[in-house]
Amino acid sequence: MGKKTTIYDIAKKLNITAATVSRALNNNPKISAATKELVLETAAKMNYEQNKLAQALKSGKSYNVGVIVPRIDSNFFASIIRGIEDELSPFGYQVIICQTHEENAKEIENIDTLLNAQVDGVLMSITKSNIESNHFNRVIKKNIPLIFFDRRHNMEGVSSVTIDDFEGGYQATKHLINQGCKHIAHYTGSHNIDIFKDRYLGYKQALEDNGIELNEDYIIQIKSDITKGAKAMKSLLKMKTPPDGLFSSSDFSALGAIQELKSQGIKVPKDFCVVGFSNEPFTKFMELSITSIDQSPLEMGKMAAQVFLEQMNNKFKIEKRIILKPKLIIRKSSLKSDA
Amino acid sequence: MGKKTTIYDIAKKLNITAATVSRALNNNPKISAATKELVLETAAKMNYEQNKLAQALKSGKSYNVGVIVPRIDSNFFASIIRGIEDELSPFGYQVIICQTHEENAKEIENIDTLLNAQVDGVLMSITKSNIESNHFNRVIKKNIPLIFFDRRHNMEGVSSVTIDDFEGGYQATKHLINQGCKHIAHYTGSHNIDIFKDRYLGYKQALEDNGIELNEDYIIQIKSDITKGAKAMKSLLKMKTPPDGLFSSSDFSALGAIQELKSQGIKVPKDFCVVGFSNEPFTKFMELSITSIDQSPLEMGKMAAQVFLEQMNNKFKIEKRIILKPKLIIRKSSLKSDA
Repeated sequence: MGKKTTIYDIAKKLNITAATVSRALNNNPKISAATKELVLETAAKMNYEQNKLAQALKSGKSYNVGVIVPRIDSNFFASIIRGIEDELSPFGYQVIICQTHEENAKEIENIDTLLNAQVDGVLMSITKSNIESNHFNRVIKKNIPLIFFDRRHNMEGVSSVTIDDFEGGYQATKHLINQGCKHIAHYTGSHNIDIFKDRYLGYKQALEDNGIELNEDYIIQIKSDITKGAKAMKSLLKMKTPPDGLFSSSDFSALGAIQELKSQGIKVPKDFCVVGFSNEPFTKFMELSITSIDQSPLEMGKMAAQVFLEQMNNKFKIEKRIILKPKLIIRKSSLKSDA
Repeated sequence: MGKKTTIYDIAKKLNITAATVSRALNNNPKISAATKELVLETAAKMNYEQNKLAQALKSGKSYNVGVIVPRIDSNFFASIIRGIEDELSPFGYQVIICQTHEENAKEIENIDTLLNAQVDGVLMSITKSNIESNHFNRVIKKNIPLIFFDRRHNMEGVSSVTIDDFEGGYQATKHLINQGCKHIAHYTGSHNIDIFKDRYLGYKQALEDNGIELNEDYIIQIKSDITKGAKAMKSLLKMKTPPDGLFSSSDFSALGAIQELKSQGIKVPKDFCVVGFSNEPFTKFMELSITSIDQSPLEMGKMAAQVFLEQMNNKFKIEKRIILKPKLIIRKSSLKSDA
């Protein structure tokens, strides 16, 4: 069996772009009849997978894919979207984006909006996971691929690309313990969202495995926000036994915590170590760079897009659950030996 | 003449939200027939502007508005979008977002995508301003309101909300001169985009007004990017007479410049003053905070949305050109007296 012919092979042969080949194969109105004919002829000669081709030709696709995220102004979600666009663009797909601002009502409206806009697929990160799933079912009933990334709703028949948040929380906490922290605080988000619950569970497990008792007062549930992170640190430092380390589920809150620590004259990392989560670019370029967990958002977006394409090219329902590995990036905010 | 009745007055009277009132008035399918009747009755009793109401009722609107931006991962554009959403949401509109990544082909595709998605309006910031405007005309011909924000294409009949970039560039440069800088470099973007040309012209004028000769070698055209900003500073510092100040049209490039200056042991602001543009949040929270020009993005988004609403409620074409005032925010990176 020889190597399968791809759209890139056809593109090379005809000296045109892969995007043009894909559009021609998918009967996109932007491509001239002459080009379509040429591409189809060449594809046939090169034994390009005929079934998919025939399937694509008879489809009435919009070539729009909807992406729903909690917010666009975080590098994490922006990078995922970039990954999705990079992967889908050569196949002629356009990405349209909606934000939920963490509001469930908005999430439902976003799905309606995208369905009305006739999208070919919905790729999304959910707001909360214990809510009713009627709006997700509306997508599925229309036979439109639904793929979750980062934050998934636990439901059958839906693919997802996430990272191992438990492992991320475990690594972050273990690192703080290794740096000598004895009293480790934790900023978490709503435990209605699995990612925050799992990071917390990883934190808890790392403490347990290292014989450190969990102190419920050290665990603070806040929004991912600089001001909120500073305020929470203020209250932590007022405790009888204030913490000497923080694992924050958000880089933004971690930054706020560091600002508060500095304003109180507490030295980071000498007297207090901080680890964030998401590896937002600012964690790297701060003078006191912040240790964080990288989630490979570009990769996550690309994979979610690949699952979508696979589903589009397949008659049968595909259910994939891809779990990426988190990566601890150690920087100044937690590295005592370098301080 | 008494005060005009608004949807908020109707909402208060009925003890329901303004969004519900708006949706009912606009015959949104999400609202029950009973509520619609009640709202219409009350609106009539309170003399709510009958013409607009009748007009809205017969319309076949999608309640989707399309927003096109060069990138979503800058606080500037994300804040504009937030402003648009805040303003349109009470009226039942959903915002869908597309990115151009500064590619003109992508801009054309985005417009097709939004038109296919049946949006009621297109609010956008353009990629380049000297290109053909066929794709803009396609929107106008469909009688769909088109509104430019920040970056506008110079064409008749289209409203825009921008800031006075010339004034911003002038203020930034004047401030550097006031701090004693004699050799002021400038990072600019493509002069095909008015905002970058205007900031440059403001820079030029400020130099001229203060008897400082323009040195073309000090002007570098780069993308808004940390690495590019660092690289450009490296080359500037190799000059026979290196500059002692920088006005960067981008905060990201300004940050890169500061990183390079530091790595070469040059003290900011003592030996070198830096001013950015856009007032991205990181400029404030860096240890060495960065002086920048605030562009009131939230306000800009709200105003663009208001122009859209006004156009939707008006049979006649409205052409508005709103120009906001920029605001210099002085911080550590350029303030010698505090250093």
